[in-house]
Amino acid sequence: MRLPSTTDVLAAAARLRGVVVRTPLVRNHALDAVAGAPVLLKLETMQRTGSFKFRGASNFIALLPDDVRPRGVVAFSSGNHAQGVAAAAADAGIPATIVMPADAPAVKRRRTEAHGAKVVPYDRSSDDREAIAREIAEEAGVALLPPYDHPDTIAGQGTVGIEICEQVASLGIAPTSVLVPAGGGGLLAGVALALEQCLPGATAHPVEPAGYDDHARSLAVGERVAITPGDTTSICDALLAPIPGEITFEVNRRLAGPGVAVTDDEVLAAIRFAIEELRLVVEPGGAVALAAVLAGKAPGDGPWCLVLSGANLDPQLLLRALA
Amino acid sequence: MRLPSTTDVLAAAARLRGVVVRTPLVRNHALDAVAGAPVLLKLETMQRTGSFKFRGASNFIALLPDDVRPRGVVAFSSGNHAQGVAAAAADAGIPATIVMPADAPAVKRRRTEAHGAKVVPYDRSSDDREAIAREIAEEAGVALLPPYDHPDTIAGQGTVGIEICEQVASLGIAPTSVLVPAGGGGLLAGVALALEQCLPGATAHPVEPAGYDDHARSLAVGERVAITPGDTTSICDALLAPIPGEITFEVNRRLAGPGVAVTDDEVLAAIRFAIEELRLVVEPGGAVALAAVLAGKAPGDGPWCLVLSGANLDPQLLLRALA
Repeated sequence: MRLPSTTDVLAAAARLRGVVVRTPLVRNHALDAVAGAPVLLKLETMQRTGSFKFRGASNFIALLPDDVRPRGVVAFSSGNHAQGVAAAAADAGIPATIVMPADAPAVKRRRTEAHGAKVVPYDRSSDDREAIAREIAEEAGVALLPPYDHPDTIAGQGTVGIEICEQVASLGIAPTSVLVPAGGGGLLAGVALALEQCLPGATAHPVEPAGYDDHARSLAVGERVAITPGDTTSICDALLAPIPGEITFEVNRRLAGPGVAVTDDEVLAAIRFAIEELRLVVEPGGAVALAAVLAGKAPGDGPWCLVLSGANLDPQLLLRALA
Repeated sequence: MRLPSTTDVLAAAARLRGVVVRTPLVRNHALDAVAGAPVLLKLETMQRTGSFKFRGASNFIALLPDDVRPRGVVAFSSGNHAQGVAAAAADAGIPATIVMPADAPAVKRRRTEAHGAKVVPYDRSSDDREAIAREIAEEAGVALLPPYDHPDTIAGQGTVGIEICEQVASLGIAPTSVLVPAGGGGLLAGVALALEQCLPGATAHPVEPAGYDDHARSLAVGERVAITPGDTTSICDALLAPIPGEITFEVNRRLAGPGVAVTDDEVLAAIRFAIEELRLVVEPGGAVALAAVLAGKAPGDGPWCLVLSGANLDPQLLLRALA
């Protein structure tokens, strides 16, 4: 198993300069007041396609062998990874195929196709999306682009952490905790690797939906623990991976701190706070770190840095948050 | 009549460092594609209280004589200026009184009072709010804080322009036009003064609601022209001043380019674009520059810089924009 290193993350940051958006790091007076200590917000919601997935996909594609890259990439996702891969492939001028549930929201399919990707629908109840993607990859000789459990994906996603390091220096505030939304754990691992090198006084912590806190449980016992999907539901559709990735967990076990779990009500309150006070649109999975701080669940006494990513908020949910 | 100078704006920028938020300047891939040239977005929606008004109020208060400042300030406004003054006064540790229509939305009154300001209601149909404010100012010996037509207010508001100059340098893109929402014209004048000194290749242009384009009409003929209120309506409640300020127009006549007017439908489309693509919450008056670019009405061929300010968006209007 090849693990990503801090050097890989730094190399990805250099490689992706000018390709990815250097997203803002901001403070908000109202949030500082509620939290009782400075809170730095990394607005990865302003990344291309609204999430950090674009970074991982761009780095993965850039590192493909020159004789493989032109054939394109395939990925399976109904959400942010689909759009991130589609946009990164379009930038690289290569084809992308996305295996997506047939019942995925029309807007997600449309946004993915808008980047020129081919969408292959599957039946959520009977098909194995990963098997379909692997079959396409093998038949066409194209690379399968993993959403998190690959060193090149993780290194690209970790460039969020490099930017945080550079930006906190100019703000003159050093966070002690960096709260990161965790699904498969790629962003967490990448950010943790960046912090180890350039902000060693800060620890990365996963934030997950209550009931889907497989990272928190796994970190607590030191080995990968799966949650039982179906025991509970969550509005955080981007963070429902049932078990940490193998590679991501090898990194996170060494570097990431205890995890935090937040409820749907806490996430809805965070979405509302983002709209009313931060003037930002954040989807549920992107609002979990903010939810943790607002609910008083953030580890330590601050200053905190929160990663907000992604921003594909269903209008119906927006209404629910504002109700 | 004392006119503000570029030196005043530069001094305000130095004075307000660490007091105001240095708001991000960002690009968005989807917007660049629609516009056909780079578009830089100055996110003044992320300023304290959601708008540039906080800058003008903070500078005005800082420049009050030391024997006058402790008595506090009074202002008349139902909107962003009310909250900007209230927050700036609270920061300075001085009392603030805001003369506000009795029928102002409860949320605006609550947000103003949340900063510790005293709200004095008046009857929109029978009372003269400016007269009430002047009376309070004279009786209590406190300063009346003008929303735009004062050199210290303008200089503070112009610090938006200084930041733009500094930030475009680091992005490596020089805009030829800076589009600025215009009500009384204070932000426009301040930004125009900043550009004159530090970005002479760029011209500031007012953007106004159709029917309330008094700046555009005044600039076209070289003298202050009033529109007739009541001829039309607009959802841009922050930009309904019927005539340019005397001081602001003296500056803008010399420095600002032709104006642009946008319709309610164009503004609603811009609010929707901001939510769906930029992931930002912007109120109608804050979205006019974006509306101008999206509608193909922006002067010249770009690159453009747009000032987005304020962000106090009524949830009902948000629903209307998304419908």
